[in-house]
Amino acid sequence: MSTIKDVARLAQVSVATVSRVINESPKASAAAREAVYKAMRELGYTPNANARALVSQTSDTIGVLVNDVADPFFGALVKGVAGVAMEQGLHLLVGNGFHRQEQERRSLELLISKRCEALVVHSKALSDAELIDYALRHPGMVLINRDISALKGRCIALNNQQGTLVATRHLIELGHRHIAFLCSDQAIEDSVARRQGYEEALREAGLGVEAELVEQGPPNEEGGERAMLNLLAKGAPLTAVVAYNDAMAAGAISVLADNGLRVPEEVSVVGFDDLIYARYLRPKLSTLRYPVELMAAQAARLALALAAGQPAPEDSRQYMPTLINRHSIAPVRRPARA
Amino acid sequence: MSTIKDVARLAQVSVATVSRVINESPKASAAAREAVYKAMRELGYTPNANARALVSQTSDTIGVLVNDVADPFFGALVKGVAGVAMEQGLHLLVGNGFHRQEQERRSLELLISKRCEALVVHSKALSDAELIDYALRHPGMVLINRDISALKGRCIALNNQQGTLVATRHLIELGHRHIAFLCSDQAIEDSVARRQGYEEALREAGLGVEAELVEQGPPNEEGGERAMLNLLAKGAPLTAVVAYNDAMAAGAISVLADNGLRVPEEVSVVGFDDLIYARYLRPKLSTLRYPVELMAAQAARLALALAAGQPAPEDSRQYMPTLINRHSIAPVRRPARA
Repeated sequence: MSTIKDVARLAQVSVATVSRVINESPKASAAAREAVYKAMRELGYTPNANARALVSQTSDTIGVLVNDVADPFFGALVKGVAGVAMEQGLHLLVGNGFHRQEQERRSLELLISKRCEALVVHSKALSDAELIDYALRHPGMVLINRDISALKGRCIALNNQQGTLVATRHLIELGHRHIAFLCSDQAIEDSVARRQGYEEALREAGLGVEAELVEQGPPNEEGGERAMLNLLAKGAPLTAVVAYNDAMAAGAISVLADNGLRVPEEVSVVGFDDLIYARYLRPKLSTLRYPVELMAAQAARLALALAAGQPAPEDSRQYMPTLINRHSIAPVRRPARA
Repeated sequence: MSTIKDVARLAQVSVATVSRVINESPKASAAAREAVYKAMRELGYTPNANARALVSQTSDTIGVLVNDVADPFFGALVKGVAGVAMEQGLHLLVGNGFHRQEQERRSLELLISKRCEALVVHSKALSDAELIDYALRHPGMVLINRDISALKGRCIALNNQQGTLVATRHLIELGHRHIAFLCSDQAIEDSVARRQGYEEALREAGLGVEAELVEQGPPNEEGGERAMLNLLAKGAPLTAVVAYNDAMAAGAISVLADNGLRVPEEVSVVGFDDLIYARYLRPKLSTLRYPVELMAAQAARLALALAAGQPAPEDSRQYMPTLINRHSIAPVRRPARA
């Protein structure tokens, strides 16, 4: 394992300078910072959090960065972290990133400047390289809902593709052949992966992907309404809908009901996330469980362990979505025989 | 207006000591702190935030304390504050209080220690006296969803009683005589005020309050289910339900539907809050709009103005809930004539 001396040697600076860079002293020059980080990356050197805490100030606060706390999915994520914080008598600070690069960076910097040694970060807009940089400088940082191979053991993610694959396969088994997909218009990997799962299930069943059966919109209720309205407007024959998430599914069901199409008798609908309200929709929504609260609690525990100087696990944890079949999925209705 | 010198004279300490207390220097003794705060309260003295910022450190962060960010109502509150923060290029930190005294105090102290000069505080568990104390020490603190007369101009609240009064009156006008109330079991003033509005409407219509038609539970979907199940179990004749909030209404509608009771044909249901999902329930939920995002944005702007040294407005703002009538309320069904 490399030491601070190795970093100093490779960066061609003094050990004191390396220490200043690690502790983000304003006395470290930009050139020194760059050289030290470069050396740290090359050597895979991670500063010891305990040592840092001695110099800087011990932190009793977990920081969590989410897209938008007003979104119930991220509310559940924060709740998972908050549970661990309460249990351990720690404070919690929450920042919003709004899936925008500049906002994510600002919010993350803020949490760091507020001395959050343990950090649970949900970032979709920052590049892998930038997150690796942050992670090297902040040993107590864990990524959630993102998988970067260079940060092995420090990522907790869900296999999104598996979810829509399982759901679409199930619909095919029930006889559905014209299955639509309500896609999120956000340019994040979740959108791509969930669409891939849907397409993979169609392909493995020998069904083609019908481009006109895929509509996109913002991943909220209104986005689901709009996408569903577009599908109906095109008059394409469809008997089932796989939605990007529960919010889009709720919007779709509302539009179907308003247009006299019964769910699930005429159209089956499946969501993703299993938000609390999924059980209160009519019919009760069949959906894929995203165990985000559990994952967030796990991420918080890992962040605290790493911040306390423990080594990262060998591999990152990947969670699996599971299908919860409530009342919005039914076998396809056979047309009456001629 | 009193000055720092007046405070020093009354507290019998030096001006420097008053300054140290105001800036929370560890050098100020506990006795000095107590004497200075007592004098500040007596004189109604509020330290100038600009002057404080010069000594301490200028803050670029708004702090918001909520009950629980995982609750969509509080998500909307945070969103209102976040909008103002984004607009003004400021950071945002969020703390959870969980309606528990110790948690609320810890979270508030944390936000203060993290140098949030502008604070939007949703506190239900701290006493008026304690909040007045905090408000005196922190001029940029604004209370939301709480009305303390000693903090005139620094509270932004909703008239909860008016909401259930209007809703219950409307049901009475539609011929309902057996109206149930799903009460929150949280010991906070909102629970009391909403119940009072319901009872007031019954009384002004000359109808008695039937104790067996009031059931309580936690203010969430499951609490609404449980309370509704209890009402049905008692077999009391009821044609309408006023719910403490949308979550309890969603639970009640689910139980009614499962038991073959049609909403609104057989039972009318009205919620409170107008969460986003209210529109996606079946039938679309009639509810009282709680303009919490608007109120939170207003609170954030006020907190920033106060933190910048502007005087508080003469009076606190009280917002009014309005009835949004969607599809879960109908006139009472007349029994068939004999």
